[in-house]
Amino acid sequence: MSLPLMFEKPLGMIDTLPALYERTGEVRRDIECEVKSWGYRPIQTPSLEYYDTVGEASAILDQQLFKLMDREGQTLVLRPDMTAPIARVVSSSMQDEPLPIRLSYCSSLFRAQQREGGRRSEFEQFGVELVGDSTINGDAEVIALLQSSLRASGLSNFRLAVGHIGFMNALFAEIVADEAIANELKRYLYEKNYVGYRQYVERLDLTTSDKTRLNRVHQLRGSIEVLNRAKEIAHTREAHEAIAEIEALWKVLETIGVSEYMQVDLNLVMHIDYYTGVVFEGYGGSLGFPLASGGRYDELLGKFGRPASATGFGIRLDRLIEAVNHLEGERKANPVLVLFCKEQQQEAMREAHRRRKQGEAVVLQNIAGIPDVDAYIKRYSEVVSFLDTGSRREKEDE
Amino acid sequence: MSLPLMFEKPLGMIDTLPALYERTGEVRRDIECEVKSWGYRPIQTPSLEYYDTVGEASAILDQQLFKLMDREGQTLVLRPDMTAPIARVVSSSMQDEPLPIRLSYCSSLFRAQQREGGRRSEFEQFGVELVGDSTINGDAEVIALLQSSLRASGLSNFRLAVGHIGFMNALFAEIVADEAIANELKRYLYEKNYVGYRQYVERLDLTTSDKTRLNRVHQLRGSIEVLNRAKEIAHTREAHEAIAEIEALWKVLETIGVSEYMQVDLNLVMHIDYYTGVVFEGYGGSLGFPLASGGRYDELLGKFGRPASATGFGIRLDRLIEAVNHLEGERKANPVLVLFCKEQQQEAMREAHRRRKQGEAVVLQNIAGIPDVDAYIKRYSEVVSFLDTGSRREKEDE
Repeated sequence: MSLPLMFEKPLGMIDTLPALYERTGEVRRDIECEVKSWGYRPIQTPSLEYYDTVGEASAILDQQLFKLMDREGQTLVLRPDMTAPIARVVSSSMQDEPLPIRLSYCSSLFRAQQREGGRRSEFEQFGVELVGDSTINGDAEVIALLQSSLRASGLSNFRLAVGHIGFMNALFAEIVADEAIANELKRYLYEKNYVGYRQYVERLDLTTSDKTRLNRVHQLRGSIEVLNRAKEIAHTREAHEAIAEIEALWKVLETIGVSEYMQVDLNLVMHIDYYTGVVFEGYGGSLGFPLASGGRYDELLGKFGRPASATGFGIRLDRLIEAVNHLEGERKANPVLVLFCKEQQQEAMREAHRRRKQGEAVVLQNIAGIPDVDAYIKRYSEVVSFLDTGSRREKEDE
Repeated sequence: MSLPLMFEKPLGMIDTLPALYERTGEVRRDIECEVKSWGYRPIQTPSLEYYDTVGEASAILDQQLFKLMDREGQTLVLRPDMTAPIARVVSSSMQDEPLPIRLSYCSSLFRAQQREGGRRSEFEQFGVELVGDSTINGDAEVIALLQSSLRASGLSNFRLAVGHIGFMNALFAEIVADEAIANELKRYLYEKNYVGYRQYVERLDLTTSDKTRLNRVHQLRGSIEVLNRAKEIAHTREAHEAIAEIEALWKVLETIGVSEYMQVDLNLVMHIDYYTGVVFEGYGGSLGFPLASGGRYDELLGKFGRPASATGFGIRLDRLIEAVNHLEGERKANPVLVLFCKEQQQEAMREAHRRRKQGEAVVLQNIAGIPDVDAYIKRYSEVVSFLDTGSRREKEDE
């Protein structure tokens, strides 16, 4: 064994120690419970998939994929997202199930990091997919469910930004035509590098008026009123259809009373390019990056042979926990320690059993098994001792 | 995209569809709850580890490892077990925590399969590790906890076989000396290929009396009385110490009242060779293979620089579910369906909200979003409709 790597973990891989993992478990359960009450059913797919199946369909950058080779020489990947695997299942094992289908998952996703920088290569994502409902109610349901899931997790100060992938595409097609330039503009927006965007626009071979229109996209964030501004900037039918969809969505969100935490952000551009319609991102606490995102992807299922509209969201559990913890107090009490010597093990076990039945977490420990008793018992709020090696205790009757 | 692989999954990889995965979730929660009440705290480690860290330490056959290379040319493996990763954590991030340490986990493990045969390459294991308690109470606690975890999962007809890795090692060392032969004998026992074992013994260059002793190991399974037989067959101090440990363990298990489901099996040989003492396997339902196993491994922690005794168990959740389901009836009712048309979405949402608050799972669905209404509504036990497009419903006052 080469010792230098002995205690190391691969780049972007982390251990989650008990205090944090217990918290993660609570949040996961709260969200599971909420999502289940909306009729979403949990599903699990393998960590490894064929590259040909989900590697390409997922549209995660190729260099972010963890690849390996199986014995037949086929390339496998650690799943970089869950949308493509679920599309595979809906189109195969679940092909006889009538649409719409509502599914949820909580799974590890894998995206290789190129350099140190605190980014995780493996993270737990909780998500839902609503497959087959193309109405605006589908979009609204997924957004409303994201809101109630975040609330169920204990996060109160969140906000959701909603945009439409069709608007930005239409605007860029109208003004710059060249797809490479459009993609470059989108990259700046995705990275939220607005200075870079502006400088890039400045260098383009366009009229001053068109440059102004491109620069005004930054004004397309805020209340629902920004949609009026959007109509001035973009003139094509596609752009106006996208705006109309957001208006319709907004009306539903108002009807069901969940528009309060929403804002419009037409700059929203996603890193995965299978999105086709309404998209959204969720922010919370004082986190500088989104803890949830999602949107409509009506073309993906067709690639798997069962054409259907679809929408969904994914919540990064690690980020959510971080956002929730900023608002929360201390963790719960440690377990109770029942300490015993060999002669009194039976009484000690009875005591531990009694307390566990009452819902307490109880560590039952033979004192002979503790290397350093003083250091050990410090961790416990309460210590119950059964250490009378000679005479029996009076609690015998219990 | 090359279509032939489109719907395929890599060898040994499976999807878990909602009905089964919901059941898995329930069983996982029941066991989590039980294990937590014994003071075990959950931990999570990465799916990928350096080969140098856990690949060698885990002692899973090299050809069963999923390996890949990172950008620095280091070999990574998908974790084949959790014991080595937890030993890494206990020796690094948790090195200041006083022993004994009680940890639990529920994680996917990966073991590549060589050929089709229904064996899974990825499976979910729930386990615990008790690190630093070398007393027999440590062994007894882990066995008692395994029993109560299985009971908590709803499995009633299980049995646990307990053995001692030291007994078989001592007996083979006493009779055949040659380690290669001893390993071959152990392999037959691990595979429970008793015919092969007997034929192999027949071909060995040994006295008839020694061959008889080797063949008598099959008698070393049953009630605690088989230990007397074991003392006749093996004569070394090591063998008798192993027997004495099982006797001491048995006494504790009787004291705490959990010896009922136990039997002795001195043939127990594990596929992982880090075990050093008491080992055990759990069977249940009509399953032909163990659904849980574990034992003492007092040497592994030392390899990570924090020498400490340790014991633990792992439950294969997929097998447990299979064993439990054999005994169980049908699954629970489907969610309720609240169907609405655009004009009545508000009333429908109110109805869904009210029912969810009462603990019902409710699918809320715009009828315009259902491609085939007849097929769709069949899945629901109850359908509540809000479809009066013209006039308002009477339930308005609700």
